[in-house]
Amino acid sequence: MIHKTLTLTALLILVLSMGRSVLAEDGYRLWLRYDQVQDANKLQQYRQQVSEIVIEGSSPTLAIARKELTQGLKGLLGQDIIFTKQPTKAGALVAGTPASSPVVAALQLNDKLKAVGPEGYLLLTMPVNGKNSTVLAANTEVGVLYGTFHFLRLLQTAQDISKLSISSSPKLQHRVLNHWDNLDRTVERGYAGFSLWDWHKLPGYIDQRYLDYARANASLGINGTVLTNVNANALVLTKEYLVKVAALADAFRPYGLKVYLTARFSAPIEIGGLQTADPLDPTVQTWWKDKAAEIYSYVPDFGGFLVKANSEGQPGPQNYGRNHADGANMLADAVAPQGGIVMWRAFVYDDKEPDDRAKQAYNEFKPLDGQFRKNVMVQVKNGAIDFQPREPFHPLFGAMPKTPIMMEFQITQEYLGQATNLAYLAPMFRETLQADTHTKGKGSTVAKVIDGTLDNHTLTGIAGVANIGNDRNWTGHLFGQSNWYAFGRLAWNHQLSSESIATEWINMTFSTNANVVLPVQDMLMTSREAVVNYMTPLGLHHIMGWSHHYGPGPWIKDKHRADWTSVYYHRADEKGIGFDRTKTGSNALAQYAPAVQKQFGNLKTCPEEFLLWFHHVSWDHKLKSGRTLWNELCYRYSDGVQQVRDMQQNWAKVAPALDEERFAHVQSLLKIQEQEARWWRDACLLYFQTYSKRPIPQELEKPTQTLEYYMNLDPQFVPGI
Amino acid sequence: MIHKTLTLTALLILVLSMGRSVLAEDGYRLWLRYDQVQDANKLQQYRQQVSEIVIEGSSPTLAIARKELTQGLKGLLGQDIIFTKQPTKAGALVAGTPASSPVVAALQLNDKLKAVGPEGYLLLTMPVNGKNSTVLAANTEVGVLYGTFHFLRLLQTAQDISKLSISSSPKLQHRVLNHWDNLDRTVERGYAGFSLWDWHKLPGYIDQRYLDYARANASLGINGTVLTNVNANALVLTKEYLVKVAALADAFRPYGLKVYLTARFSAPIEIGGLQTADPLDPTVQTWWKDKAAEIYSYVPDFGGFLVKANSEGQPGPQNYGRNHADGANMLADAVAPQGGIVMWRAFVYDDKEPDDRAKQAYNEFKPLDGQFRKNVMVQVKNGAIDFQPREPFHPLFGAMPKTPIMMEFQITQEYLGQATNLAYLAPMFRETLQADTHTKGKGSTVAKVIDGTLDNHTLTGIAGVANIGNDRNWTGHLFGQSNWYAFGRLAWNHQLSSESIATEWINMTFSTNANVVLPVQDMLMTSREAVVNYMTPLGLHHIMGWSHHYGPGPWIKDKHRADWTSVYYHRADEKGIGFDRTKTGSNALAQYAPAVQKQFGNLKTCPEEFLLWFHHVSWDHKLKSGRTLWNELCYRYSDGVQQVRDMQQNWAKVAPALDEERFAHVQSLLKIQEQEARWWRDACLLYFQTYSKRPIPQELEKPTQTLEYYMNLDPQFVPGI
Repeated sequence: MIHKTLTLTALLILVLSMGRSVLAEDGYRLWLRYDQVQDANKLQQYRQQVSEIVIEGSSPTLAIARKELTQGLKGLLGQDIIFTKQPTKAGALVAGTPASSPVVAALQLNDKLKAVGPEGYLLLTMPVNGKNSTVLAANTEVGVLYGTFHFLRLLQTAQDISKLSISSSPKLQHRVLNHWDNLDRTVERGYAGFSLWDWHKLPGYIDQRYLDYARANASLGINGTVLTNVNANALVLTKEYLVKVAALADAFRPYGLKVYLTARFSAPIEIGGLQTADPLDPTVQTWWKDKAAEIYSYVPDFGGFLVKANSEGQPGPQNYGRNHADGANMLADAVAPQGGIVMWRAFVYDDKEPDDRAKQAYNEFKPLDGQFRKNVMVQVKNGAIDFQPREPFHPLFGAMPKTPIMMEFQITQEYLGQATNLAYLAPMFRETLQADTHTKGKGSTVAKVIDGTLDNHTLTGIAGVANIGNDRNWTGHLFGQSNWYAFGRLAWNHQLSSESIATEWINMTFSTNANVVLPVQDMLMTSREAVVNYMTPLGLHHIMGWSHHYGPGPWIKDKHRADWTSVYYHRADEKGIGFDRTKTGSNALAQYAPAVQKQFGNLKTCPEEFLLWFHHVSWDHKLKSGRTLWNELCYRYSDGVQQVRDMQQNWAKVAPALDEERFAHVQSLLKIQEQEARWWRDACLLYFQTYSKRPIPQELEKPTQTLEYYMNLDPQFVPGI
Repeated sequence: MIHKTLTLTALLILVLSMGRSVLAEDGYRLWLRYDQVQDANKLQQYRQQVSEIVIEGSSPTLAIARKELTQGLKGLLGQDIIFTKQPTKAGALVAGTPASSPVVAALQLNDKLKAVGPEGYLLLTMPVNGKNSTVLAANTEVGVLYGTFHFLRLLQTAQDISKLSISSSPKLQHRVLNHWDNLDRTVERGYAGFSLWDWHKLPGYIDQRYLDYARANASLGINGTVLTNVNANALVLTKEYLVKVAALADAFRPYGLKVYLTARFSAPIEIGGLQTADPLDPTVQTWWKDKAAEIYSYVPDFGGFLVKANSEGQPGPQNYGRNHADGANMLADAVAPQGGIVMWRAFVYDDKEPDDRAKQAYNEFKPLDGQFRKNVMVQVKNGAIDFQPREPFHPLFGAMPKTPIMMEFQITQEYLGQATNLAYLAPMFRETLQADTHTKGKGSTVAKVIDGTLDNHTLTGIAGVANIGNDRNWTGHLFGQSNWYAFGRLAWNHQLSSESIATEWINMTFSTNANVVLPVQDMLMTSREAVVNYMTPLGLHHIMGWSHHYGPGPWIKDKHRADWTSVYYHRADEKGIGFDRTKTGSNALAQYAPAVQKQFGNLKTCPEEFLLWFHHVSWDHKLKSGRTLWNELCYRYSDGVQQVRDMQQNWAKVAPALDEERFAHVQSLLKIQEQEARWWRDACLLYFQTYSKRPIPQELEKPTQTLEYYMNLDPQFVPGI
């Protein structure tokens, strides 16, 4: 007996270690890892609570749900899963829609199901056939799939599943990733390798990765993907590419993921042979209608168009003396018959140099409120400049009550350290969502604007510019996965806290063990503030390296347009620093509601985090810390570096609990981040010092190089352009 | 007891199935899979024959060998490995050098070791301390590593290891991969995604993939890698990039893999600030000497330079009225003090349009024989045109007896179907290696030219243009791995047969089971001939699509130089087809030895596979088959399509024995290959028919589209440019 037991143990150790040796911990599995539950008690409980599964139906979506449950529970519970037609004992999991499952239909959940809508689901502990069961019910099969991932997440995060009473449905209708992917597979602002879409091999070759991508999105409830760059190429609208788009759409469909395309406004000229793209020209309108019908012939559930027009050199309706509504409405009419939508971006600035670029979107779009078709959303970036580490909320939120406003977040870290910096973005997303526009009095949060509750819109949505590429771990930096995850979770429910999302992600990605969770949680929750500190503290913005936005470039000036320089934004001089956006300056502040104007316009009440966004402030101005502005700037930059070092120390703590490969990956990148944080600190302080002419406080670390050294750095072939 | 046994079995099934569910069969593991030996008898034998390991020493290279043995044997034998200081029982594996291992030193293998040289190794069954053991002995630690992979391969391929008496050493000194990788991570003629080298994150971030790349090369004995494209960018020679190169070199070094760079000839101007790059100018010579010294300060074992000069617009010595020897010697002098070499490419053609491009390399290089420094090799492509599906051997082989000639094969399938076609290239490599140049009488094979035995050279080498990218399976097409494998194996031993290499690769990649081996072997051995048939049968060449070389383009004409068109090469007219390279034509044939001239020059003795390479042949000329040339052409094109269909049928046979993911991957690509084979057949036959004005034999499949249709196809964003 002893011998046998020894053999058993030896075999187990052996096989498990074999598993480890061949399983590259390269991050490919994302948060869907399904390794066996670590806590022995929990494991024992779960095994009792999930003893058999009742899931009927053979549609592609239900087959995916079944496969996910099989793999997930096999992994998590370490035992084979039994499927039955009816609950035969306590611990059944009954999953389905009333249409797919007679057992679910018999449960009389109609009222509850009605409340969760087409994508929502119920997870209820209740008796079925007299057996204590877990019921996963939804109105649609995609709802069942979403609920499947929710249920598995409960086990992955070690939750109590004995008394479930969950009803969940998304607060936003369109939850969409924007891929700025070019047809040559380069990715604008992509830092995780190259595009997932291997256009050349489509439609014949469906990469397993396409399915794994769709599955990951389904696990979060992301239900749309814009395949192509907003700086669009009309070729994707030709037949040669539409058959490829259709192949991707077919692969994604069972996962509830709809495909969208970017529409190049001049496509009627470039691929249609027309002389104009004027949106009021009937031949142009007909061309787009025919083109839309052609697209729908390939992709029956095509989602619609995302458009960047009259911005950064892109063609648009203004080329023909028309406005954004004219352009958007033409496309909206083209896709309306088949239920498509148009997401028209408000990120615009034309060739003329404005007095303040922050004002332009509002100036162009606010007057158009009420002029858009019902199936148009205006897609607005979280802030008025461009995805900075911190921006005040965009003044368009709440300013166009007759128009559905869609949020555009950037998940890829164009301005937040790109491939090499850990920055957990949920706090940044949440900061904007919770911001109070005051447009309908106190509590008029940005979240209420976009979820339609403030102005009674049913067409709602959120977009995230994806950080996904063909790197083996999807996002380049392993922790970039947390931002894909956080975006998806907030798109489903914007009321989730950053902390709770972080905990989920850590549990699923690394461990439920407090020895891992606590230090990693600390890293995540510190990280975005660290980036703000070492890059752009106190409301500074857009002082990154020219064009590629990698590294510091506060000295950038004399480019062909002023608002592509850094000096335009920081306006440092001998008196002080900051962009005066009050009445004495550009008065961009006037675009906000009076209560906001009042708070931000007053140097005393303006949150210090936005100080230099709205005010040009004297170097000797005293801040809440009691320090002068210059000294506070020095402290903030230094704090940022220290915060990265703290992250390094936290990471060191998890070494014993983690596989070598992922540990080393993050450790290397944190080391680079620490170097880059110092680079930022030293370059910015030395540069601003040429204006402040004040010393860096003695107690702080000093730059090790000269300003000239930093100004001469000229990184080549920076990714993402 | 029964209960316990059941539990044991259940647990094993469970854990093994868990392993499967999480282990993506994405091809990442290459041929180094180490799954448990399938044959129960063999497994039992191997467990007895490898019962413990004696390997001493803690250097990085020996640590890698130990890790490989641990992982490999654990996987293959399914049992833990015991390390001891001395053999304690029969079945010990004793590995090391006389310097690293006292046990090996005591075995008195000096004479045998002397014979295998610095990279070779012995694998001997012999008693050690009276215990029957397997001894793996080498003169260097890299030799031990190479022997480690050999030993594991014996088990992977189910060989008898009971009486080993192996001594192995490479027949060529420099076994080098050429990566045509650009600094922006695009890969010229790369069809497996983008460059492995993530320059931006270097030197700080060492991707696990770099180590896995080096490991794969070590498993084959590949000992050099040229990191950058032959169409070179001088930036890689700047300090900013040299620190990155050094980081890669440090990662590769323990695997015996040396780093080389491509030298842009005009670098002294572009990054050196000089006015000239004239190789006879002393300031230029000094610049290169200083630059080489600088490189060696970062990479002490830097291998040297690969140079493409005065070819396809690249700068070179001819820009200054100098010749290739002048250019090569300048660089050779720069790297000589530290033992570096220069690989100077013979693939040249200048701006003037030659009467026959096939003649140019010979014309330029043959007169320079004897003028190169001792540390220069002239790197010659297998054929005189450009990596076609089939070419006669390059006339430079054997024509420069005073100069070490290095072989350049192309592993990436620029002209052989690129990303989507299965073409096992070992038969093509072997065809050239075995070709008889007759330059020193019968038996003067190309292999003897490059291994130095024909003309007594000790500096020898072979280069393969890599097919490796950042696709998860490394080579895009899973079967592309067989070409990396075959290149490496032939670089070590050019006498291996294509068949034996195929069997090894199949055993290691898929299975040792005959149900898998036989059909896959058939696929591999058919595949290259299939490509020749449906693309360029009977000696046709270079009729691929313009610039990207994807798909058929026999109609390409009127480009800015004639030798970049297809009509230049096939010369079809109403009388016949083919390039007359005999005395009545370009007389390129005169560059070969008389015996070769005699055979190839006579329409009756010229191998039909080279017929249209050397002769313009009448459409009605009778071939060995009894068919006219036109009909034979129709048959060959049709055979090619049929061969692909046979490959599809063979692949279908392996379905039961294979994982879903790899099966589906190859199945999809074979389907695309069948479409592309038909595309080639139909487009070429319709086009050539406009000259032959003869019908396609009735019994053959007819084109389904018009010639115009094929000529209007214009694939965009083809990879690899």
